[in-house]
This record gives sequence, C-alpha cells and structure tokens, in this order.
Amino acid sequence: MTKKVLVLPGDGIGPEIVSQAVRVLDAVNESFSLGIQHESALVGGSAYDETGSPLPEDTLAKAKAADAILLGAVGGPKWDGLDMAVRPEKGLLGLRANLELFSNLRPAILYPQLADASSLKPEVVAGLDILIVRELTGGIYFGQPRGIRTLENGEREGFNTYVYSESEIRRIGRSAFEAARQRGKRVCSIDKSNVLEVTVLWKEIMEEVAKEYPDVELTHMLVDNAAMQLVRAPKQFDVMVTGNMFGDILSDAAAMLTGSIGMLPSASLNAEGRGMYEPCHGSAPDIAGKGIANPLATILSVAMMLRYSLDAKEAADAIEAAVSSVLDLGLRTADIASEGCETVSTQAMGDAVLAAL
Amino acid sequence: MTKKVLVLPGDGIGPEIVSQAVRVLDAVNESFSLGIQHESALVGGSAYDETGSPLPEDTLAKAKAADAILLGAVGGPKWDGLDMAVRPEKGLLGLRANLELFSNLRPAILYPQLADASSLKPEVVAGLDILIVRELTGGIYFGQPRGIRTLENGEREGFNTYVYSESEIRRIGRSAFEAARQRGKRVCSIDKSNVLEVTVLWKEIMEEVAKEYPDVELTHMLVDNAAMQLVRAPKQFDVMVTGNMFGDILSDAAAMLTGSIGMLPSASLNAEGRGMYEPCHGSAPDIAGKGIANPLATILSVAMMLRYSLDAKEAADAIEAAVSSVLDLGLRTADIASEGCETVSTQAMGDAVLAAL
Ligand SMILES: CC(C)[C@H](C(=O)O)[C@@H](O)C(=O)O
Ligand SMILES: CC(C)[C@H](C(=O)O)[C@@H](O)C(=O)O
Repeated sequence: MTKKVLVLPGDGIGPEIVSQAVRVLDAVNESFSLGIQHESALVGGSAYDETGSPLPEDTLAKAKAADAILLGAVGGPKWDGLDMAVRPEKGLLGLRANLELFSNLRPAILYPQLADASSLKPEVVAGLDILIVRELTGGIYFGQPRGIRTLENGEREGFNTYVYSESEIRRIGRSAFEAARQRGKRVCSIDKSNVLEVTVLWKEIMEEVAKEYPDVELTHMLVDNAAMQLVRAPKQFDVMVTGNMFGDILSDAAAMLTGSIGMLPSASLNAEGRGMYEPCHGSAPDIAGKGIANPLATILSVAMMLRYSLDAKEAADAIEAAVSSVLDLGLRTADIASEGCETVSTQAMGDAVLAAL
Repeated sequence: MTKKVLVLPGDGIGPEIVSQAVRVLDAVNESFSLGIQHESALVGGSAYDETGSPLPEDTLAKAKAADAILLGAVGGPKWDGLDMAVRPEKGLLGLRANLELFSNLRPAILYPQLADASSLKPEVVAGLDILIVRELTGGIYFGQPRGIRTLENGEREGFNTYVYSESEIRRIGRSAFEAARQRGKRVCSIDKSNVLEVTVLWKEIMEEVAKEYPDVELTHMLVDNAAMQLVRAPKQFDVMVTGNMFGDILSDAAAMLTGSIGMLPSASLNAEGRGMYEPCHGSAPDIAGKGIANPLATILSVAMMLRYSLDAKEAADAIEAAVSSVLDLGLRTADIASEGCETVSTQAMGDAVLAAL
C-alpha cells in the first residue's frame, strides 16, 4: 500500500535542511521497500510571497490527504510587518488546527557525543532525557476574542484569550500519561494555578486523568518554578505536560539545555496518530542559504515520522543509528562544532548520513 | 522626618528571613540615624488563617500609608484547595494592584564568591549582570473576563484574558529605558508578536518609547527564543523588558542561572517611586521553620529599599558591603553551600551580617 508524505520546506533554512532529510527518506524508502510517495507544497512566508496566503488551499488539501507531513520551519524578519492574519506562522498554526494535531511531543535529549555542547555543567545534564508534551491546538494561541481595539479614551488595547475546556485538557493529559507509560512513568503537569483560573481547571482534570493511569505518578509544578528547575536540575523530570504557550517557552528552554537543539525532532499528532514532523529549532533566517545549517533534527524527524505514522520501525532505527555513527565519526555542523571534530556543511552532513545508512 | 516601613513576613520561610532583615534594618536605622519606624502586618496564607482574607483591610491601609514595604513571601500547599479569591497570592497581587506597583525590577547577578553555585558552565555565567523589568499590575494576571464556566454541552471551560493598553506598555517601557540608561544602555523587549495580538501592540509601543531614548538601543526577541538564549548565552542581555506572565517565567529562569536565587532582591515600584521590596525566591514551604533558609535576598531587599524609596544610599551601601564581606568570610546557608565553606543557619547568617556592619 502506498503511503503519502507531504513535504513542506517552508522558510529560512527550511528548504536546505528538508532537502537533506528527503534524500534520507528516499534512501530508506528504497532499501526497506516502504512504498512511500512524497510531494511538496508551499507554506509560511514563501507561500505568502507566491500566493498571498501562508496556507494555500492546495497545501491544506494535500496535508489532509497525506499520511504524514514533514515540515522545515516558517517565518522570518522578511515578513515582520505583516498583519497577523497573513503572518507566515499562520500557515503553521492553520495546519495544526485544521489537522487537529493537538499533541506535540518534544524530546530534550543529550546526545552523549555532544555532551560538551551544553552550556550547563556536565554533571547537571549528563544523560538528560525529558519529554515535553505540549498542547498544540488550543490555549491562548487560538482563544477568542482576540485583537487590538480602540478604547473610549482613544488609546488602543491589545487582547488575547487563554482558554481550555475539560475535553481539551483530558486528551492532552492522556497523551502525556501514555507517553510516560513507555518511559519513566512520571508526569509533571505545569500550571499557574495560583493566579490563572484556566490552569486551575487544567490541574483538576490532570488529577482525574491520573486515576486512569495508576502506574504513572503525577506531580504538579508552577510554571515559574518549572523554568527554574529546568535550569537548576533538569534531570528531575521525565514527562512534562503543559499548555500551548507555556509549552512553547519551556520546550525551547529544555531543548537548549542539551546544547544541541539542532539535533532535536518533534512530532505533532492527532487522535488517529497521523502527524506532522519538524525540527524543534526555528527557521534561523540569519544563516539561511549559507549551507551551514544542521539537517540532523529534520533527518531525525523523518525517523520519528516513520516510527509513529508510517509503521516503519526498522527504517526509523536505521536512520537513528546512521545519525549516531556520523556523530561517532566526529562530523559536526557549525552549531555543534567542537574541538577535535570536523565542521561540515549541511550537504556534507546529509552525504555522511546517507553513506552510513 | 520619620519614614514608615511596613513589614509583611507572609508565609513559609517568610517570617524567618524577614526577622533577620529587620535586625539589619534596625541596625542601620540606628547607626545612620535614619528615623525609620516600622510595624508589621499580616498578608497571604497567614492573614487568611487569622482573618479570612489574604489582604486584610488593616494591612492595605497600613501599606498605603507606608513609605516602603518589606515583604517575605506568600503561599504554600497548606492553602492549595482554596478558591482563587482567597488564595494567599491574592494578597500579594492585591498589594501590587492597589499600590499601582507596575514596575518590577529583578536583577540576575552572579556573585563572584558564588561562581560555583550555578548549574551553568563558568564561562557562560561569569560576570552575569542582567536586569529584568517586568510589568506587574496588568496583563493576564489581572485581565477580565476570567473564570471557569459551564458550556452548553455540559463541560467546563477555564478562561483568562491577556490584555495591555498603550499607556500600560508605555510606562513600563519608560521604566526599562530609564534603568538601561544607568547601565549598559541596551533594552531587549520580549514578545510573542508572531502569534499574540496583544504583544504586537507591545512591540509597537516599545518602538515609540525608544524614540524618547536615542542613547539606548532597543531590540526585540520572541519569548521562546528568549528562554533559549537565557540558557545558551545569558550575558548577551543588559535590560530585558516584558509583561507580567512572561516576566514571571523568564525572571525566575534568569535568577536561577546565577545559582544563587537565595541572594537576589527585587523592587516593585509605582510612578512616585514608592515601592515594595522582596526576595526573588518564594516561600519555600518545604524548608519553612527549619532555620536553614537564606536571609540574604531579604537583607539585600532592605538595601534596595533604602536606596530607591528611603533616600538612604550610604546605609544601602553599608548593607551590601556587609553581605559581600560575609560571603568573603566563607559563610554560606544550605542553598549556596560549597566545599571549603561553612554552612550556617538563617540566624547565624543574620548575626554575621550584623557583625560585619
Ligand atoms: C513559529 C511559531 C508559531 C511556533 C509556535 O509558537 O508554536 C514555534 O515557535 C514552535 O514552537 O513551533
Ligand atoms: C506568588 C505569585 C503570585 C507571584 C507571581 O506570579 O507574580 C510570584 O511567583 C512572583 O513572581 O512574585
């Protein structure tokens, strides 16, 4: 049976890194006879430039028809002045919402070969392996009403709404507990329940979900403390579950703890396990087009896609092993450059992974 | 002329650390003939237990009449089940709102004597000196409407409103630029302008304020990137300015970078420079009553209070010098314990500062 993958290179370094990841996908597709067909489409700023919309109809239709999506990154200063409705990010948020990709899995793993890359002391991060489960289709990202209005006194006021319903909280809770069951069996739910009512409900529903998973331990932590604890002693966490906005902030901080955010893939899944896969890092417009970006997070996103959405575990294992052996060989892109290792280009890193496959 | 200080010990370790800080205040009051009178009042959980309100009328009246307020910390698991309206934190938020303490200054400084305490590598944090300016009386902490409501389908939904007006943004912007003028002359404004309209307005008004301060450089950063950059390379920042919620998260992360959050004071000021002073850390209920909490952040909050609200710069300098000399002597509370240094109690640390004065 053919499986359809939609490839969305996006903006900034997106196209460069995605093209290496697609080479890797093609290679395992052939060697493991996976029967994957892929096509590309526009999203983000580049889609806006060409069609006037960051999420063209055609892209959305293809996304809905696909078994999985591989995305690079979107956005950049080029589109900074744009109205919110046509911002490049709107394309990404539109995909998340339309495909109901509510469960965003963001691992923060320290690769032993890259132990030096972290800005944290070795003893604080050695062996780090956290999974952040971020709610991705609700919260303040999508809450209504929102906008900028003019008050009676003539000045303007900007407003957004942070909102979660019980069922939204329950399903992301279950995602987190399911994931924890496969790992360290501990979930830490992040809230600001001493100030925000919406997170009081969040905390309450997490307690309810926990009753369905007696083998998994649930704790709660305030978001400000969580930000501190990630810096102080990140290894205390197994799975962290949180809303869209807090998850955006905490998962980026957690990924950066490893010093190798250029290595971290992510998955955004819907209730049927269909998903969109993308690196944890952004579009890095400052280095776009220079051929120095790290393609490994995107290549590892292909592995995650094969495992979670395309039922091709062996191919996923093969890619992950290839990436590991390339690191063992001492090859590094500029972001993870290290003394005694060879700094290579985006393309050369792709070549090396292909050779190792 | 007498000056009135209101002392609010609060909950958890609050009373222990505040009592050491008050001893220090008394000592400089006498030696520098400052004419300070102080009295205490209840706030937070302890106020709730005694009066049924986390901010009794009497406390608020005294706070309004005071020239400055010294606060310990509020909250704790004892009050966890409480309704939002009577949460201990409501007392603190009520003080901030009623006194219009909109400008929260939170330094993150690495004390050279405590260089080892950070979980970050020495080269990443040596010499760290950031100031976070957090808006404290607006944003999602105070936005209306808020609450938990039942939807038509019978499930509940929690909601809060993230809102800022132009004038609220302008005044916190000016606070940040004024502070930057006294320091490194660089302001980095934190927003999520690729997703949230309220922060689009934030960014725009910051640009306007920047025109009033041609000697200060303004840059912008997305909040997720800011959380990463604080972990990766915190020394790139001078002054960061942000809203109430982002500021809560980022300032805690920044403070923890130093490894000595038990050392960091903060000031919350209104338009007239009257202020409330408190440690950056919380009420630490897990160690309350054990006599091991670090009183230095509260003692340094007294110094900040003397400098900013009580026009007693020499006394402030004297306290800061005393704290520094105590660290030079190798005295440490448990939170900053270090090999080769003597671990002392809360009381013994207070004694040592008094002796050094
Ligand atoms: C690009 C942006 C809209 C997006 C987000 O905020 O969710 C990104 O930061 C992410 O974390 O995937
Ligand atoms: C206690 C709590 C309400 C408070 C806040 O969130 O502002 C605290 O975390 C702080 O940062 O001062």
